[in-house]
Amino acid sequence: MTDTDQAQDEIAQLRAQSAPTRRATVSALEARLYTPHQVLDHGFVRVIDYMGDDSAIVQAARVSYGAGTKHVSNDAGLIKYLMRHWHSTPFEMCEIKLHVKLPVFVARQWIRHRTANVNEYSARYSILDREFYIPAPEHLAAQSTVNNQGRGETLQGEEAARVLALLRDDATRSYDHYEAMLSQEGQAGLARELARMNLPANIYTQWYWKIDLHNLFHFLRLRADEHAQYEIRAYAEVMCQIAADWVPLAYAAFKDYRLGGAQLSGKGVAALRRMLAGEAMDAEKAGMSKGEWREFEGVIKL
Amino acid sequence: MTDTDQAQDEIAQLRAQSAPTRRATVSALEARLYTPHQVLDHGFVRVIDYMGDDSAIVQAARVSYGAGTKHVSNDAGLIKYLMRHWHSTPFEMCEIKLHVKLPVFVARQWIRHRTANVNEYSARYSILDREFYIPAPEHLAAQSTVNNQGRGETLQGEEAARVLALLRDDATRSYDHYEAMLSQEGQAGLARELARMNLPANIYTQWYWKIDLHNLFHFLRLRADEHAQYEIRAYAEVMCQIAADWVPLAYAAFKDYRLGGAQLSGKGVAALRRMLAGEAMDAEKAGMSKGEWREFEGVIKL
Amino acid sequence: MTDTDQAQDEIAQLRAQSAPTRRATVSALEARLYTPHQVLDHGFVRVIDYMGDDSAIVQAARVSYGAGTKHVSNDAGLIKYLMRHWHSTPFEMCEIKLHVKLPVFVARQWIRHRTANVNEYSARYSILDREFYIPAPEHLAAQSTVNNQGRGETLQGEEAARVLALLRDDATRSYDHYEAMLSQEGQAGLARELARMNLPANIYTQWYWKIDLHNLFHFLRLRADEHAQYEIRAYAEVMCQIAADWVPLAYAAFKDYRLGGAQLSGKGVAALRRMLAGEAMDAEKAGMSKGEWREFEGVIKL
Amino acid sequence: MTDTDQAQDEIAQLRAQSAPTRRATVSALEARLYTPHQVLDHGFVRVIDYMGDDSAIVQAARVSYGAGTKHVSNDAGLIKYLMRHWHSTPFEMCEIKLHVKLPVFVARQWIRHRTANVNEYSARYSILDREFYIPAPEHLAAQSTVNNQGRGETLQGEEAARVLALLRDDATRSYDHYEAMLSQEGQAGLARELARMNLPANIYTQWYWKIDLHNLFHFLRLRADEHAQYEIRAYAEVMCQIAADWVPLAYAAFKDYRLGGAQLSGKGVAALRRMLAGEAMDAEKAGMSKGEWREFEGVIKL
Repeated sequence: MTDTDQAQDEIAQLRAQSAPTRRATVSALEARLYTPHQVLDHGFVRVIDYMGDDSAIVQAARVSYGAGTKHVSNDAGLIKYLMRHWHSTPFEMCEIKLHVKLPVFVARQWIRHRTANVNEYSARYSILDREFYIPAPEHLAAQSTVNNQGRGETLQGEEAARVLALLRDDATRSYDHYEAMLSQEGQAGLARELARMNLPANIYTQWYWKIDLHNLFHFLRLRADEHAQYEIRAYAEVMCQIAADWVPLAYAAFKDYRLGGAQLSGKGVAALRRMLAGEAMDAEKAGMSKGEWREFEGVIKL
Repeated sequence: MTDTDQAQDEIAQLRAQSAPTRRATVSALEARLYTPHQVLDHGFVRVIDYMGDDSAIVQAARVSYGAGTKHVSNDAGLIKYLMRHWHSTPFEMCEIKLHVKLPVFVARQWIRHRTANVNEYSARYSILDREFYIPAPEHLAAQSTVNNQGRGETLQGEEAARVLALLRDDATRSYDHYEAMLSQEGQAGLARELARMNLPANIYTQWYWKIDLHNLFHFLRLRADEHAQYEIRAYAEVMCQIAADWVPLAYAAFKDYRLGGAQLSGKGVAALRRMLAGEAMDAEKAGMSKGEWREFEGVIKL
Repeated sequence: MTDTDQAQDEIAQLRAQSAPTRRATVSALEARLYTPHQVLDHGFVRVIDYMGDDSAIVQAARVSYGAGTKHVSNDAGLIKYLMRHWHSTPFEMCEIKLHVKLPVFVARQWIRHRTANVNEYSARYSILDREFYIPAPEHLAAQSTVNNQGRGETLQGEEAARVLALLRDDATRSYDHYEAMLSQEGQAGLARELARMNLPANIYTQWYWKIDLHNLFHFLRLRADEHAQYEIRAYAEVMCQIAADWVPLAYAAFKDYRLGGAQLSGKGVAALRRMLAGEAMDAEKAGMSKGEWREFEGVIKL
Repeated sequence: MTDTDQAQDEIAQLRAQSAPTRRATVSALEARLYTPHQVLDHGFVRVIDYMGDDSAIVQAARVSYGAGTKHVSNDAGLIKYLMRHWHSTPFEMCEIKLHVKLPVFVARQWIRHRTANVNEYSARYSILDREFYIPAPEHLAAQSTVNNQGRGETLQGEEAARVLALLRDDATRSYDHYEAMLSQEGQAGLARELARMNLPANIYTQWYWKIDLHNLFHFLRLRADEHAQYEIRAYAEVMCQIAADWVPLAYAAFKDYRLGGAQLSGKGVAALRRMLAGEAMDAEKAGMSKGEWREFEGVIKL
């Protein structure tokens, strides 16, 4: 599983071969093919294959809407229109396949996105490598005191040292014992499917993950968001760069309408109109709860 | 929508272009790319894009099962093993995108397969072409007298002529009236989204349809089956040929284990064992209903 | 298929029976159970079964977020929070099953929502009834002159009469010929699976349709929208009333955040902030296309 | 999370309440509602809600096939027919919601079934309980020497004791350190979303899991199978009992056609016919690999 010399050789070999194709081809993504993009301390994302490009989105939309798409002057305009109006099916016509190495606790969040295809390394069949995620000091955050699911200040000094030592020691000991259970001279050795239960959630696993562009954008909207846990966001950010190379027009539309956009409630729209008409508003006048008003203010940044 | 000269030009142009790629490439499928394969009187299937090949299935399985796959000597053996043991995820790693032109009543059956991506020509936005499916004489079948959903003898002579005349006349008249409702000199013209309701179910529509190999096989098992309606089976058979060119090892396994295989019930297995031990069996002894026994006999072909 | 006396009896019988249950029960929805709610000229929606209520959403969220949900004071507040922050899984814990009778061209739009379970009346097995959707005069709209997929003015006088006559005559004739193909004295009769191809898209079909609340809301957001075709919107509006009775808190949140809300792009948010700071904006200053600006103005209603 | 007295009270309260409903009701399942059915050392399955019964399957099939279902004399016969012919949609009309407590390594296998709705306890928001799965001595199996993913003999004596001690000690230590990282007097405490990474895969989690009957059967066919890992099979077996109470006719059909049935390849069918005609067969004559022949013999049990 580690990027040993053998794996490096294999990648070099895959990258060296080339064949002519009549399919839609994206040279910026070809340049990334097979290369592992490092994430966290031992993880990576690498593109294994892809189908379609910006033109494939346009092509599919023109099959659907026929003459109806002719009034949009160009591909960029049509793609923006599709994104703005939540037309998801043309974006489903593109597909990407990634090889990802990631800690188990990240994998557990990730897999909640059901509309994807997955082949994960099986610890029933095979033995996991000795590789654990240990946060870099700057990511060792305290529990937020205001948000149940958030992070607060970065741990400092002795406390940071104590936590890192615990994580490292426990990972090492758990793996030692995993190996010791699997085989010990003169003994039978515990079944792999049982021994793995001793391993902590920061051990690395890996999988092939294949998803269409619409669902990839949905994943990125949630996981590249500032409220996402840092460890999965690190993967999402690399995947944003990959998407930007792969389908630049669609990614630009996604960035403007989804990542950078905001959702207003009916009450928010009503409050906004009154404010634009010069009225001073507050939570009570807007009929909002404190939480709603705080989030509304976050959008309009008063 | 028709294969006019313009469409022919576009296809020729697409087929002429070629770019180097590092992705998995299947030359037998490259040769089919963009070319319409005719089905029924005006329909077609054409391959627009594909992702992966037989090796991609093996590669994904080896990520999952790691060392666990090493005892299988070769790719063909591993693929057969995966198919036999219902391992679906490695087959999901391949994807194909087709452009299909088909009668609406076929499209209505087809769309019941939900695990696919679809962009259909929209008769809200655009005007449908004057193209209808009229069965060839040899496919003009009577209702089966023994099977509620099946076909019996082929209609002959006068009856065949009468039916064909009705289908042709009604299609022509419906389309004439569709056009007349859409626009008539000096009148506003009915909205397209309403006018389309006058068109019969044998009018042709078209769509882009994208599906992974596992779900394609599921589709083909049901629709290339002799119990499927002839008109959808005609499409499935062309798609079987495409799959055979695309992933020859996986298709061979699918053919042996799914298309050519049989499912036995627990009672069927028990009956079989007694027969192999020399006992004469019948429905009653096997504890089967007449229908079950008839189907069981169909498998063992006594 | 028609609501004959027999069907009426069956409904009365189903409505009369009652059994005690420990499951979550919603009395306002119990009152609707089995009763057909009429839609269009011959269609209906009737609730066959349901699972869960507002409390089931809260209960599922509290399993997920545990202590994390305790700071939200009550169920209504928690449900609003979940809706606002796109937490979809708690809403998936509720499920509803409907029996719907609808024209085929509406069914074809409807079925594009894939995350639902469907059992449709099969015209391969059985014979369809002689029932067609004929628009009421006030819904007989001209093609929009500004929007490829929209409706314009209502047709008047002679043109309306002409269109209605064409729709009625073609429906009658198509059905007469359908019957004549199916059986004619002394002849074999065409197979049902073939004869149905002569029927126009305004014939009624029916199905059982089961969906979870999250996906129902997604359906309603698209289909109860003013841009949806009137004929499917008529169904969506009845389903909105059903949902309001079933899960009043969730429906209220859906209405505020989805139906009545608005989505702003990054450019829209930036423009808004400048306007609130007193700056006069236009499309060019905002970096928007004309279409984007028109839609932005629609939100802020200047 | 533990079944403390408070949880017991809540369950008793839920079980005590009852309301009249017009919905399909299954008294044998009502009796099970809310009661935890123990699995493994600390896990459970409890039914929270259900929709539909055997009649709901029949009702949905009769909507689809109309008159086509009249020749099947009774509900049991129709349900068997549907199962035998892979008609999945009528079974999708039933739905069940379970509350499950299970070790994380079991949860990771389970979640691979994507067609279900899930709300899992979140260790980002909340603190996990100190509960770990420790195998009972009779389930402490060695790695199989013939099967990469299987179990062999049960570990005995000293080896068993050593393994159990390692599992217990590591679980205890990991949890102690988890607590110590979360809070320590005078220190900030690590964020929950980070601290959880120290916990091993045998810690218990819990979720609400909702699935339709068709997909439940698919889950049970794979997970109640003798090749499934014992720990997930233990859950599947309890769920089989629940299904048998809920939909007795459908479960009986599932048991005969799926659990107790067998799949033959085309080569298997051909070989069988020759054997029934009196010919002696072997792998070579049948054109099968050794693995295929071994599995074929397993079906016919020579």
